[in-house]
Amino acid sequence: MKVITEISEMRALADGSRKQGRTIGFVPTMGFLHAGHASLMRRARQVCDVVVASIFVNPIQFGPNEDFDRYPRDEAGDRATCEAAGVDVLFMPKAPAMYPDTPSVFVIVEGISDILEGAVRPGHFRGVATVVAKLFNIVKPHQAFFGQKDYQQCAVIRRMVKGLNMDVEVVALPTLREPDGLAMSSRNSYLSPDERRKAAVIYRALSAAEQLAKTGTMQPEVLKNRMQAVVREAKDLEIDYLEIVDPEGLAPLASAQDSMALLIAVRIGRTRLIDNLLLQ
Amino acid sequence: MKVITEISEMRALADGSRKQGRTIGFVPTMGFLHAGHASLMRRARQVCDVVVASIFVNPIQFGPNEDFDRYPRDEAGDRATCEAAGVDVLFMPKAPAMYPDTPSVFVIVEGISDILEGAVRPGHFRGVATVVAKLFNIVKPHQAFFGQKDYQQCAVIRRMVKGLNMDVEVVALPTLREPDGLAMSSRNSYLSPDERRKAAVIYRALSAAEQLAKTGTMQPEVLKNRMQAVVREAKDLEIDYLEIVDPEGLAPLASAQDSMALLIAVRIGRTRLIDNLLLQ
Repeated sequence: MKVITEISEMRALADGSRKQGRTIGFVPTMGFLHAGHASLMRRARQVCDVVVASIFVNPIQFGPNEDFDRYPRDEAGDRATCEAAGVDVLFMPKAPAMYPDTPSVFVIVEGISDILEGAVRPGHFRGVATVVAKLFNIVKPHQAFFGQKDYQQCAVIRRMVKGLNMDVEVVALPTLREPDGLAMSSRNSYLSPDERRKAAVIYRALSAAEQLAKTGTMQPEVLKNRMQAVVREAKDLEIDYLEIVDPEGLAPLASAQDSMALLIAVRIGRTRLIDNLLLQ
Repeated sequence: MKVITEISEMRALADGSRKQGRTIGFVPTMGFLHAGHASLMRRARQVCDVVVASIFVNPIQFGPNEDFDRYPRDEAGDRATCEAAGVDVLFMPKAPAMYPDTPSVFVIVEGISDILEGAVRPGHFRGVATVVAKLFNIVKPHQAFFGQKDYQQCAVIRRMVKGLNMDVEVVALPTLREPDGLAMSSRNSYLSPDERRKAAVIYRALSAAEQLAKTGTMQPEVLKNRMQAVVREAKDLEIDYLEIVDPEGLAPLASAQDSMALLIAVRIGRTRLIDNLLLQ
């Protein structure tokens, strides 16, 4: 596995691969990799000629009071994960190279960026869209792989790609979960053992709604009430939002439809976790 | 010369050219082409293997009370101009293909987009940056050619390219002028014969400042006063702005420096014209 830190070197490798007619699969990450990331890399390995993963903790997607400074890092572990998953190139640009000046150029995806996660984290999706655009322009992937755990992020990126005619196929893959159902996330490392135990309630709430829906109870209000009741079983969890939305536009649903996305964000102590489930 | 209207066909041609190792030169325009546009195409012809010109009157860079609806069009003339200048591919996408949905994805270049032209035309540079990003993603040029007449536009695009790590070299070429000095512009066609005659005062004002500077008088306030006096010689011209700025950041200058850009925008009747001169 080749490790590249220079943007120019990454670009040259991408150009060379494309000129040879080799397809590039790309997995952008913020590091502290877990099995969810590895599953994206393995899928890229299956379908693309060259697999590039990036690790870059993107400062402009964090708010001033968020966890940028304490975001977990494990470079040695991450290298091993990438290597084991069949990554060809690990791209780890430095922040001063990615943002040599105070950032003033942004990609914005209006509407969808301002609700749910975007309402709680103003500027977050602007930062995400911008860094993904930058990375796409450097890595020049044919396909880019994202985890469905970040459901709204996937929607924002899909819309960006379409809106700016980026020649990249966005592939969203299923969320990987711990044995108790907790969605894998780098931020799970923040949790104390007690918090970690309680965090399992998030997926239990999603599953409870799914069960209800399977029995034919599909009204969003009823499903939301059920989820709220399950989350409240665990003490010390604060719901940031809990919405049942249209899977495409992410507009909250007042009445049931065939396909619905359940989106939830909770705070446990200082940690903020998100999860989702697609009902189809 | 090949004429392409479909985005997918343009993309395929760009991919094919790149795969063959051929360099792509790109001249994006809004049509109603004049000798200034042709000079960009000829330069592209000299330095690139494949020359692509685009004609697209981009609705999102026009304000609600601007001249989108009456922007001049001359498809037959434009084809002839492109052909004569050695263009290989004329790309003329349709608006519903470029903007299938209400536009919600934008590239913004903060700061530089909000002053001068941007102050008079809110949202203009957001529209410009967005459509240029889209066209770059479709045409995939190695080099893109712009006229220096749109000085601030060149600065915005350069900053966008750098900020988003677009792999395109932006080339700005000198403004072409009519015999009386008026900068060539598609919008000159709006002018009545009387207005057209008066419009020559714009370049006379810029030249007067240049002459003053050559004699050692470089203070921005003095140069501005001289330019204002010249413009006032012609009746019925209203100055939108007249600024002496840093050529890079476009910040207004209070004191002289080695390199300065003179930027001017005037209204003559219903027509708005811009021009500039670089003092070095």
